[in-house]
Amino acid sequence: MTAFNRSSLEELLKKRFFYAPSFQVYGGVAGFYDYGPPGCALQSNIIDLWRKHFVLEEEMLEMDGAIITLADVLKTSGHVDKFTDWMVKDVKTGDIFRADHLVENVIETRLDGDKQARLTTENDATSQKDKKKKKGTIQAVKLEDATKAEYEEILAKIDNYTGTELGEIIRNHKIKSPETGNDLTEPVEFNLMFESSIGPTGHLKGYLRPETAQGQFLNFKKFLEFNNDKMPFASASIGRSFRNEISPRSGLLRVREFTMAEIEHYVDPNNKKHVRFDEIKDVKLSLLPRYIQSEGKTVPVELAIGEAVEKKIVDNETLGYFLTRTHLFLTMLGIKPDRLRFRQHMPNEMAHYACDCWDAEIQSSYGWIECVGCADRSAYDLTVHTNRTKEKLIVRESLAEPLVYDKTVLEINKKIFGPKLRQNAKIVEEYLTNLNEEQLEALKKELEDGNGKTMVSCADGNQYEISSDFLTIQKQTITEHVREYIPNVIEPSFGIGRILYSLIEHVYWTREGDEQRAVLSFPPRVAPFKCLLVPLSNNPAFSKLIRDLSSKLRKLHISIKVDDSSNSIGRRYSRNDELGTPFAITIDFQSVIDGTVTLRERDSTKQIREKIDTILQVLKDLVDEDVTWEEVLSKYPTFVQQELD
Amino acid sequence: MTAFNRSSLEELLKKRFFYAPSFQVYGGVAGFYDYGPPGCALQSNIIDLWRKHFVLEEEMLEMDGAIITLADVLKTSGHVDKFTDWMVKDVKTGDIFRADHLVENVIETRLDGDKQARLTTENDATSQKDKKKKKGTIQAVKLEDATKAEYEEILAKIDNYTGTELGEIIRNHKIKSPETGNDLTEPVEFNLMFESSIGPTGHLKGYLRPETAQGQFLNFKKFLEFNNDKMPFASASIGRSFRNEISPRSGLLRVREFTMAEIEHYVDPNNKKHVRFDEIKDVKLSLLPRYIQSEGKTVPVELAIGEAVEKKIVDNETLGYFLTRTHLFLTMLGIKPDRLRFRQHMPNEMAHYACDCWDAEIQSSYGWIECVGCADRSAYDLTVHTNRTKEKLIVRESLAEPLVYDKTVLEINKKIFGPKLRQNAKIVEEYLTNLNEEQLEALKKELEDGNGKTMVSCADGNQYEISSDFLTIQKQTITEHVREYIPNVIEPSFGIGRILYSLIEHVYWTREGDEQRAVLSFPPRVAPFKCLLVPLSNNPAFSKLIRDLSSKLRKLHISIKVDDSSNSIGRRYSRNDELGTPFAITIDFQSVIDGTVTLRERDSTKQIREKIDTILQVLKDLVDEDVTWEEVLSKYPTFVQQELD
Repeated sequence: MTAFNRSSLEELLKKRFFYAPSFQVYGGVAGFYDYGPPGCALQSNIIDLWRKHFVLEEEMLEMDGAIITLADVLKTSGHVDKFTDWMVKDVKTGDIFRADHLVENVIETRLDGDKQARLTTENDATSQKDKKKKKGTIQAVKLEDATKAEYEEILAKIDNYTGTELGEIIRNHKIKSPETGNDLTEPVEFNLMFESSIGPTGHLKGYLRPETAQGQFLNFKKFLEFNNDKMPFASASIGRSFRNEISPRSGLLRVREFTMAEIEHYVDPNNKKHVRFDEIKDVKLSLLPRYIQSEGKTVPVELAIGEAVEKKIVDNETLGYFLTRTHLFLTMLGIKPDRLRFRQHMPNEMAHYACDCWDAEIQSSYGWIECVGCADRSAYDLTVHTNRTKEKLIVRESLAEPLVYDKTVLEINKKIFGPKLRQNAKIVEEYLTNLNEEQLEALKKELEDGNGKTMVSCADGNQYEISSDFLTIQKQTITEHVREYIPNVIEPSFGIGRILYSLIEHVYWTREGDEQRAVLSFPPRVAPFKCLLVPLSNNPAFSKLIRDLSSKLRKLHISIKVDDSSNSIGRRYSRNDELGTPFAITIDFQSVIDGTVTLRERDSTKQIREKIDTILQVLKDLVDEDVTWEEVLSKYPTFVQQELD
Repeated sequence: MTAFNRSSLEELLKKRFFYAPSFQVYGGVAGFYDYGPPGCALQSNIIDLWRKHFVLEEEMLEMDGAIITLADVLKTSGHVDKFTDWMVKDVKTGDIFRADHLVENVIETRLDGDKQARLTTENDATSQKDKKKKKGTIQAVKLEDATKAEYEEILAKIDNYTGTELGEIIRNHKIKSPETGNDLTEPVEFNLMFESSIGPTGHLKGYLRPETAQGQFLNFKKFLEFNNDKMPFASASIGRSFRNEISPRSGLLRVREFTMAEIEHYVDPNNKKHVRFDEIKDVKLSLLPRYIQSEGKTVPVELAIGEAVEKKIVDNETLGYFLTRTHLFLTMLGIKPDRLRFRQHMPNEMAHYACDCWDAEIQSSYGWIECVGCADRSAYDLTVHTNRTKEKLIVRESLAEPLVYDKTVLEINKKIFGPKLRQNAKIVEEYLTNLNEEQLEALKKELEDGNGKTMVSCADGNQYEISSDFLTIQKQTITEHVREYIPNVIEPSFGIGRILYSLIEHVYWTREGDEQRAVLSFPPRVAPFKCLLVPLSNNPAFSKLIRDLSSKLRKLHISIKVDDSSNSIGRRYSRNDELGTPFAITIDFQSVIDGTVTLRERDSTKQIREKIDTILQVLKDLVDEDVTWEEVLSKYPTFVQQELD
């Protein structure tokens, strides 16, 4: 097989209209793509399989929510304040760059230059080979050892710098605007959400959602009720989300508008076991946990998930269950297992809400790219929405045996409290009722030390005197029949476009000895079109047969593509190899005489020839992946005929 | 059957989480809804059937495009200037109203009051009955006959007033702010598109698309190429669109964010025949053409579509084909044929681009509501985008026989033309080459009359002298081997949410004698969940059977809902009648002993009892609608057992 060539693949994807830049006749806008017929069908099939594999398999509660989201919701979730990137401007041209990406690129280039310079002195042969690999011109400039070490440290930490720190790096290391060499401004924060205004007043602000998750959280109570108040359960949602990237590149891998499929699996924080864990515990995953990364290594460990959970490499069964189901899903689509790994986030790179996170990373020509994130968001989201709206997004669980325990509690004697504190009573009461047990004990001590009096600092910034004659702090025995808790959320979040693109790279190859004859070997269930229907020529004798056969295939819900163009059969087969169409039925003069047709398989190019009804049954089984082509070949004789080019 | 009660239905839809206002815990925002599990599954099934019925059946070229659309695109399409409603404000409170809706409501109320006043004098009994039908308080005030006639005329024309005209009506007829009685401002235009800004500069404007159509038009060239340059063909797209309604009400029928499914079928303007018209020509449709409406009548005519096209009631075969396919699709979903009609737009109510338009209107408690629009958009969109971008969105057709005809053409003698006109040569040439045949003939005459000299007014506003020594205008014989044309577009456009809500009303009923026992009789293929799985009780003996059966049903891709709650069987059946689940498998002690289970059908509540494998096969056939329940009952004995409540 020849080496992978991205530009050949991109040429194919454009020619066959898998996808193209949106508004291309208007010049296009970075980060927006339209999926053409094969891309759209491929995406539909991936989504359909996702729904079967996750939603139907686990009876998840799927919802379809609004894209435009009330600003308040995203303020609460933290997105308004924290969902930002740092940008810098060329002081003269006004060109805008994402600060961390710019620093990363420049430092990487300088380190590459250093590497080349060192290699040139050490070993000329290697240096030549290495030079060829690199695109563009890299100047071989040797760095001071200390600078080199500093650069390497910057790269390792690149995801975690504040704007001020990025600004310092830019100044200290003389990083300039790449095209012009001009100075850059200080980094400023740029929020990645698209903003709009709802209704005619102009006062009601909304954002295009950056994820489907928040819509799911807001409906937690309704889901729980729909599930007959039973825990654990999962909600799910498939839909468009938006991120106003500063300067998106990398094709489908970094876009401003994308389709996500997200699951929010709600669990009891005290019990993250999964009832179906046993079914998958022996599946082996390629894991890159923190302990390997922190040694600066990137070679993953192959482990059965059962063992990984047992050894606490993966925190709990539910997280392990979803990592494994994700692995099964991706490999079923055609992702190569040796180009798939699960990488655990380092503590400092996790999103603000996550308490643990593993990414399914797929290797493509762009490197190892996060395609699925699997985060334990803890109780973060349900807690902040509960606090903000006072709607309790919680679980109430009847206890089989009541829970009895001692607790420090506060009692306020309202008869004295109110009159004494007057208009300040409310703010002081709020302060007091928000104290936890430890704080109550401390307050009790203060009161005792202060002869029954002390001052408290309330939310309005003022201090108020309280005294022990209007409040009691003491241990009480509490008996609880109902346990209330905010569930934790395990969230597997799938970037459909990233999976789709990575998959295309994995199934792309060219036929031995002919680089022009490219093939996309999608598994039948994933392939955009299942069967090509070709008459040998556009002889009218074939048209009735084509019509009948089309109609029969549609009844079987097999998506077809008829190609009755005047191109040669070989040309038409090639075109459909490029579309990844796994099978082709060919109608020739023999078909008109005896009702037999040939069935060709894409990868092997082998054919069988049988009666139409037999072929239809075989095709149905192949498309449903109930039989393999090898099994078909072992049952029916191979039909040998020269392919006519 | 009891009379339809919308609030009971709404209660059910809320309780079973078919849908709910988005961000409800934050108070909600009008016009945004989230679909819960049954609503979401229902929507998926409708979309899935739409894709099979239209896209797969006709090998349409489906695409999935960007929602955020470059402002330029929508400027060209006319949406930036014309996609607006008129709004008025309460001068004191600032409350905003959509002007035409407000006028319509007030005038309707006054006419109702007049009707009551007249009836009260004429016939007391009828008046009482009529009063009950109306919500709210209507004052019985008799109007002058002239005023009444004027009001009726306003209602008939309500969709076509300009802002100034609406302002006059509001002033002349003393229409005030409904709650406060305050004066209203002059109507101002409000664009219905949500606006946003793309990228970090703030200079690149985008809108959320108001329809998927424009994205399809922009890709016309790529589609045509994908289709091997063959005409006619259709593209299709399913996705979210947005309209920033001024004050949306009417539940799912008027929302700010909605899912559409649109087809753009491209035809040769000289040939709007459809190759499959014969297959559907005998299907009868309920048609409300212009000629009936212009007589002030609303009783549709039942006609076979073949006859309707023959009589030119429906303009052409392609339009007729899609009306019929739409009828077949909607009735397959469960829309009642007697509550479905196709209404032709009056010439003055069509969108700015349309040259003919029929709406599929479905009757619900909100009246007859447009759920599908079927417009002939002529060559409008492809023409305006071609003119704006200079990318020719056209068809080039090789002619079997060359076309030979005479044409008046212009030839410029550049050798003289350039030197004479100097820096003005370009603008004059542009003016001349844009003249059509008629204009050229006129210019020729002017030159002859002016002794070979005349003045022309060019695009820069200046006049330039031209003379016959540097241009020739004469008839030439033209021979064309290729015909170039801009296709016409027939566009069936489906509002999925409106269809979904109307369908729910059509399949909703309550069991005889018990208004509390509501049923949603979705056809099996449409139903959110296909089968309920209920163990008689939560006895552990049943759990293995439930698990095995669940797994088998999932393998058959039958979506299930297990209800092992402690509610009675009757209660659990009722709950699923409300979800519209057509079948239920019940596991009891007998099942554990002999491996038989019962299968219950929702509408009849009848059951059969057979071995599990038999039941699974029967269920699969029922869900695929390959057999009816009646056929099943004629084959298997009815199992009689009291339903336990």
